[in-house]
Amino acid sequence: MAGNPVAERDAMARARELAARGPRGVNPQVGAVLLSPDGRVLGEGWHRGAGTPHAEVDALSRLRPEEARGATAIVTLEPCNHTGRTGPCAEALLAAGVARVVYASADPGEASSGGAARLTSGGVDVDRLDEAEGEALIADWLFVQRTGRPRVTVKWAQSLDGRAAAADGTSRWITGPEARAHVHRERSAHDAIAVGTGTVLADDPLLTARVDGEPDAPQPIPVVFGTREIPAGAAIRQHPRGYRTAGHELERELFGLAAAGLQTLYVEGGPTLASAFLRAGLADRLTIYLAPTLLGGPRTVLDDIGVGTIDEQRRLTVTRLEQLGRDLLVEATTGKEH
Amino acid sequence: MAGNPVAERDAMARARELAARGPRGVNPQVGAVLLSPDGRVLGEGWHRGAGTPHAEVDALSRLRPEEARGATAIVTLEPCNHTGRTGPCAEALLAAGVARVVYASADPGEASSGGAARLTSGGVDVDRLDEAEGEALIADWLFVQRTGRPRVTVKWAQSLDGRAAAADGTSRWITGPEARAHVHRERSAHDAIAVGTGTVLADDPLLTARVDGEPDAPQPIPVVFGTREIPAGAAIRQHPRGYRTAGHELERELFGLAAAGLQTLYVEGGPTLASAFLRAGLADRLTIYLAPTLLGGPRTVLDDIGVGTIDEQRRLTVTRLEQLGRDLLVEATTGKEH
Repeated sequence: MAGNPVAERDAMARARELAARGPRGVNPQVGAVLLSPDGRVLGEGWHRGAGTPHAEVDALSRLRPEEARGATAIVTLEPCNHTGRTGPCAEALLAAGVARVVYASADPGEASSGGAARLTSGGVDVDRLDEAEGEALIADWLFVQRTGRPRVTVKWAQSLDGRAAAADGTSRWITGPEARAHVHRERSAHDAIAVGTGTVLADDPLLTARVDGEPDAPQPIPVVFGTREIPAGAAIRQHPRGYRTAGHELERELFGLAAAGLQTLYVEGGPTLASAFLRAGLADRLTIYLAPTLLGGPRTVLDDIGVGTIDEQRRLTVTRLEQLGRDLLVEATTGKEH
Repeated sequence: MAGNPVAERDAMARARELAARGPRGVNPQVGAVLLSPDGRVLGEGWHRGAGTPHAEVDALSRLRPEEARGATAIVTLEPCNHTGRTGPCAEALLAAGVARVVYASADPGEASSGGAARLTSGGVDVDRLDEAEGEALIADWLFVQRTGRPRVTVKWAQSLDGRAAAADGTSRWITGPEARAHVHRERSAHDAIAVGTGTVLADDPLLTARVDGEPDAPQPIPVVFGTREIPAGAAIRQHPRGYRTAGHELERELFGLAAAGLQTLYVEGGPTLASAFLRAGLADRLTIYLAPTLLGGPRTVLDDIGVGTIDEQRRLTVTRLEQLGRDLLVEATTGKEH
């Protein structure tokens, strides 16, 4: 069965919009649109977070009984095939009499995948569309599925010669206002933001994302790594989303963050924490702000990252190079990206 | 008197070509063209180095007696007004009966300047043309006249995080072939190349400029800074131009290099020497090759450059930013340029 290509593509784009209304968390963002055989929109749905109906079921719930019979379901993610807090969507679609299912991204879950096969064996016509767009929508969630941990971006600002501060520890301001504004947008684009206790004690950062013209920009949850006590008057205690603490076993802590629905982590937290993530092979992406200045001296942006000899150097793949005011932004991957 | 604008401009361009035939050294490169009143070229000359005739006198020597009477002299540099190893050119032009002199760059020398005024008072029509091009031709020489020392370019290659080598000292290769080829062109564009004895002992460099397709590329003279002995078998002893040695008093050593006719110095010599030039405020230009790799650890490209607190940071003016293969070239001035 061929379906209605134009109507289905429009519906998939609409489904992606609907998906984005849902929250980022443990579950993926998913949207669904039900079309009549002649291409009319019968109903729409999206997933509102763990424990609530999946997008397909949400869309089916908007229809009158029997209205879905012979319909086409357009879904951004392959319908699931397992019973969690909700029943399997593949069964719900079969029960409703849906004749055709078009999805974008395949479900990578060990327990939840197999929905497409179940639908096919149940006599439903199954097709795929806009796979790349579907995966882009839930790229971070897919990363968590593959690795069990959030995608980690490590950020730092440095002088051209790789220093974070002058010899006496002073560092305001190495980078200019454009770079600092970019940092706030980056913060807002991540689910959580990591600093070490050393940075909390030294700089007392508020760690909010302050994005010009966007007073309601999403705020990442601060995560303070380390064992030292956070002072009673620390600014971070006033963070609108509260804060989490984490210990020295980075990988275990990351598994915990993923289990809490945090798909991305922005590590801002000073040379010690940045070096620890790199040493552990847990830095997926880097955003480095290079200021056109020299400092020399002992305050390097990284300390030991586990490179004893040149063959162990951490080659980067530069994905973006951009001038931000007088500074240079280098975005790179470590080649460890899964 | 107006002169012949088209013929004079053509003659000035020709004079610059002639100037470039002369050697770089203690004296500037200068070219001269003599024009008849109707704009014909009567004679050409250029300066072949200290102790030889100046360009104007060289050009006059090609003419028959009385042929220069009423002629126009086009010279890239203001005719000199003092008696060194040769007599003042202003007097020679007056004696030859030249009616008009057009020059580009003014002579900044305390003893040699004043030639234009002398000519004017002698009844010669004096004019200036192509001042910027004239100064560009002898920019390095003018720099030496103003500062008494060569123009210094400090070069280094580093990982993104500012390391010159891995923890064990290994560093081959941090940068790629394009960056390394660029270094050889840069070497060839300088009069002298500086390394520390530490680099000679550790790397045993040959310090020749190996430029693809240019077997006769100019070779800078190596200058080895430091007090340690250069081993008998050191590669630098085979350098086609020999080598010089220099001690720790950088500024005094630079005065000596300028007095020897070396107008530009390319400092390649390792973190200690680079830091010493920066600390002393004797680095005019920087060429930094940034490799997309991280090393961490103790082998920083710079050590103490005299920045104790952030207000003392060495702000750079980036003059060029270019990708060379996988590496990034940053060219900058220190703002100390005179």
